[in-house]
Amino acid sequence: MYRNRTCGELRLADVSKEVILAGWVQRIRKMGGMTFIDLRDRYGITQLAFNQETDPEIFDKANKLGREYVLQIKGIVAERYSKNANLPTGDIEINVTELNVLNAAITPPFTIENETDGGDDLRMKYRYLDLRRECVRKNLELRHKMAFEVRRYLDEHGFLEVETPVLVNSTPEGARDFIVPSRMNPGQFYALPQSPQILKQLLMVSGFDRYFQIVKCFRDEDLRADRQPEFTQIDCEMSFVEQEDILEMFEGMSRHLFKTIKGIDLPKLPRMTWADAMKYYGSDKPDTRFEMRFVELMDILKGHGFGVFDNAAYIGGICAKGAATYTRKQIDQLTDFVRRPQVGAKGLVYARVEADGTIKSSVDKFYTQEVLQEMKKAFNAEAGDLILILSGDDANKTRKQLCELRLEMGNQLGLRDKNKYSCLWVVDFPMYEWSDEEGRLMAMHHPFTSPKPEDIPLLDTDPASVRANAYDMVINGVEVGGGSIRIHDAQLQQKVFEILGFTPEQAQLKFGFLMNAFKYGAPPHGGLAYGLDRFVSLFAGLDSIRDCIAFPKNNQGRDVMLNAPGIVDQVQLDELEISVNKKEK
Amino acid sequence: MYRNRTCGELRLADVSKEVILAGWVQRIRKMGGMTFIDLRDRYGITQLAFNQETDPEIFDKANKLGREYVLQIKGIVAERYSKNANLPTGDIEINVTELNVLNAAITPPFTIENETDGGDDLRMKYRYLDLRRECVRKNLELRHKMAFEVRRYLDEHGFLEVETPVLVNSTPEGARDFIVPSRMNPGQFYALPQSPQILKQLLMVSGFDRYFQIVKCFRDEDLRADRQPEFTQIDCEMSFVEQEDILEMFEGMSRHLFKTIKGIDLPKLPRMTWADAMKYYGSDKPDTRFEMRFVELMDILKGHGFGVFDNAAYIGGICAKGAATYTRKQIDQLTDFVRRPQVGAKGLVYARVEADGTIKSSVDKFYTQEVLQEMKKAFNAEAGDLILILSGDDANKTRKQLCELRLEMGNQLGLRDKNKYSCLWVVDFPMYEWSDEEGRLMAMHHPFTSPKPEDIPLLDTDPASVRANAYDMVINGVEVGGGSIRIHDAQLQQKVFEILGFTPEQAQLKFGFLMNAFKYGAPPHGGLAYGLDRFVSLFAGLDSIRDCIAFPKNNQGRDVMLNAPGIVDQVQLDELEISVNKKEK
Repeated sequence: MYRNRTCGELRLADVSKEVILAGWVQRIRKMGGMTFIDLRDRYGITQLAFNQETDPEIFDKANKLGREYVLQIKGIVAERYSKNANLPTGDIEINVTELNVLNAAITPPFTIENETDGGDDLRMKYRYLDLRRECVRKNLELRHKMAFEVRRYLDEHGFLEVETPVLVNSTPEGARDFIVPSRMNPGQFYALPQSPQILKQLLMVSGFDRYFQIVKCFRDEDLRADRQPEFTQIDCEMSFVEQEDILEMFEGMSRHLFKTIKGIDLPKLPRMTWADAMKYYGSDKPDTRFEMRFVELMDILKGHGFGVFDNAAYIGGICAKGAATYTRKQIDQLTDFVRRPQVGAKGLVYARVEADGTIKSSVDKFYTQEVLQEMKKAFNAEAGDLILILSGDDANKTRKQLCELRLEMGNQLGLRDKNKYSCLWVVDFPMYEWSDEEGRLMAMHHPFTSPKPEDIPLLDTDPASVRANAYDMVINGVEVGGGSIRIHDAQLQQKVFEILGFTPEQAQLKFGFLMNAFKYGAPPHGGLAYGLDRFVSLFAGLDSIRDCIAFPKNNQGRDVMLNAPGIVDQVQLDELEISVNKKEK
Repeated sequence: MYRNRTCGELRLADVSKEVILAGWVQRIRKMGGMTFIDLRDRYGITQLAFNQETDPEIFDKANKLGREYVLQIKGIVAERYSKNANLPTGDIEINVTELNVLNAAITPPFTIENETDGGDDLRMKYRYLDLRRECVRKNLELRHKMAFEVRRYLDEHGFLEVETPVLVNSTPEGARDFIVPSRMNPGQFYALPQSPQILKQLLMVSGFDRYFQIVKCFRDEDLRADRQPEFTQIDCEMSFVEQEDILEMFEGMSRHLFKTIKGIDLPKLPRMTWADAMKYYGSDKPDTRFEMRFVELMDILKGHGFGVFDNAAYIGGICAKGAATYTRKQIDQLTDFVRRPQVGAKGLVYARVEADGTIKSSVDKFYTQEVLQEMKKAFNAEAGDLILILSGDDANKTRKQLCELRLEMGNQLGLRDKNKYSCLWVVDFPMYEWSDEEGRLMAMHHPFTSPKPEDIPLLDTDPASVRANAYDMVINGVEVGGGSIRIHDAQLQQKVFEILGFTPEQAQLKFGFLMNAFKYGAPPHGGLAYGLDRFVSLFAGLDSIRDCIAFPKNNQGRDVMLNAPGIVDQVQLDELEISVNKKEK
């Protein structure tokens, strides 16, 4: 053993004890006849003191060290002359009597501090040094704890973690698969799983009753900031349950996580229908840390001669409490914000509620004060509030734009505190959504999702209006998890496939494997999956999932540290009987 | 909720309660006016009773059910007339008042019983039905428990579970990689990890101090009975430790598993040097459930005119206690056994210790009773024992043959009880082993393994005799885990590479990435990895790892249930810019 204590544990009570520590040099301060070194390990930082007078030899040795050298020291714990209240070990230091350099270190390409001078690219290339920074390491400690508490909760509730294979086959319908050529079956390929959906349903057919798995999933999609080609799911499934049972079980899991990890007592989760979420927040994952709900204004503002509104399919607004102080410039900036191509609105109408209660708006010439007061009432607006209105010829698109504006206002008004959590269930998702691209209805969740029993008659008359037993858990505007009750009735499944436009033959070809399994006695079942990366980054208060992943990939799908992917030997390709296509010149 | 109780929990104390159960029909017995159904779920089996007289309608309904139908029933718990002591619920039955068929089932292709009529191929094709069998499901329940207890132990000892990526790059030296074409980086490939070895060492460079991960690993090798292309490791690494620290920590983990899972108090693990393991058991993973150690007989049996022995490089034997009763036929069968090509011995010499203490052997004409008595003494043999002797011109090969014979005798004499566990550490592995194929010394563990400090001078003079700080945990003749202390000194690493025949340039090319990371301050570190599949199969008493894997692959690397691997669309290949080579006719 290279040490008998860690760098995080020594306190005043340990004074006079002889200890052995090991760690990295965080900082060296030379102050005349004294040199101080902060020694760092995973558990903390301890100050080492070297006195020229009492031990000149070891003092000289200490002065030759550099940042990130790896040391083992022996010494006596002493009370510090000037204590550091910011450090748990700040009351003591070590008078070093023995110093072994376990390894030297060349100068790191960026400073190993929470506030580093290293840019993203450099930090990713030297991720093993980046991970030395406390702020990054803490995220991974949090991830470990969350995963452990998830397992503890699910184990206590009778769930079995079952590992499903990584080398599977290509999925019908879904994102693009990563594929793996098989040497033993030339010309054939495995696929990496986008999720263990079919396998977990098979485990229900097997009678496993309660399954979970914290599992890597893979999607070969073009990457956005918050996507990784490999990501981790908390994947769960239960048998003999209805939607209510699942919501209760996993609300309990979230409660357990909030309590054990953040010390927060989560209140009973509110439930919002998908229709309300779209109507009031323009999003199926509303950020409910703040109200500022949409108010629809078609009845009030249409037909008064303002052409933009008169021709609109949707007019709606939000009321920003206390924002009437916004200057002309600030409102212009908001107008620019909604006009950005990422948002796509044509313009922004605003209305200030003045101190005397009257309304001053950018469209005053079209509306009487009476109409504006009616609008004010619709918002429950008060003196000092700022009303912001968007309109458009596509209601859903305009709601999405208004959603962006709402979130931006939430940011500007400081209503989106990362240390405040607002969780809810969004329920009653539609079964289907229309795809212009495919020219047909598509499954919103997946084709095995069960319709709400009371909506089953609508499958024949108005399938687009059928609601599903599907649900998402949303925290602070982030969808952390979602799932559904599955269909376990062969006839109902057949009908759902028909509506998706599959002939029985096509359905058999695409999903026959699971359908056949169901013939041997499938129990009613359902489940959900959480995105662990997102869940952790929410708890860590991160904007991106990247810093809660030890070795993430960049937007080109590259691990710049490992330099993966890379070229492989021709021998390997020959064994696999595949070739890389020659580029056309 | 489809039920309020499970099929495993009702007892006499529940009599008269109204309960709702759900599950599968395990068995139907029609006995005149009574029909009994065994209803099965993951938790057990409960008998349902249907009485023609009291409820003819439900009786008729019950009589139309078939095996594996999925039912929900409501009924009253009643004491059974004829109790079943083999079943935890055997004292009660349910008088069913309501019966819902949740799903019908077609007849399964094999019986869902522990003793099934389904062959391996059929069971694998319908694995989801095979998993309904209690004996298979129990293995996966055990696997869940073991993984959970591993995590609990390691968490309690400050280990962090860190997920390392699955899409990495190809490994220098090692088995064949599975590779994954990258769409975003055409012509380039990821590789699936054979183990997270380099990444876990980087985590030590990062100061993670104590890492573990239960992680899928991949090797594209031709498959033997006990190999799978994807398998699961318990992968661990620690910093600032010496070999003793690792052995202690993981002996503790094994003790925790044996205690919590099997209720066994594991004694302190004995340690055996690799040299002794080879000398006394002819194997680096000796089955120490029984003694029967090798005794070398060169001194005693050589030079007495028996040509086979006189020309041998090795003569050794084992003493099978009490086996002098073996008949001529049994000994002939043993001779056939050692002559099988898989063992490869030329012949077998035997010697019986008779009741009067004299020896009767197959080579009596070459040896005086005096010499034979000397041999008897070497074995500490007694009246009734059978001595079995092999010889050969290659000591190591002959020891391996003798090892096979020893294990076979262990089987025949019932000394390899699956419910008895004998664990030990095998330590002091050689650093290098000679490869005839490569014509050079190869790293026995891997090139980052540290030599024993006292053997470092031998690197210059006699590298083949250098012992490593490498260790295996062996249970019942199975290597369940192994690892090493790694080199953290750049100069020592350089020397080890030289002995492996790498120029500094080659070493840089192959291992430069890790070596560079080490320059920034690598702590002394080491670790090990357990094979979870093997560990579970040992605890489950299985001969193969297959039945502790939910969805295993066959010897051709196929998942016959999923029918993976398979053909993929040309579109997919085009996007990846790869082609399948055309077969030459």
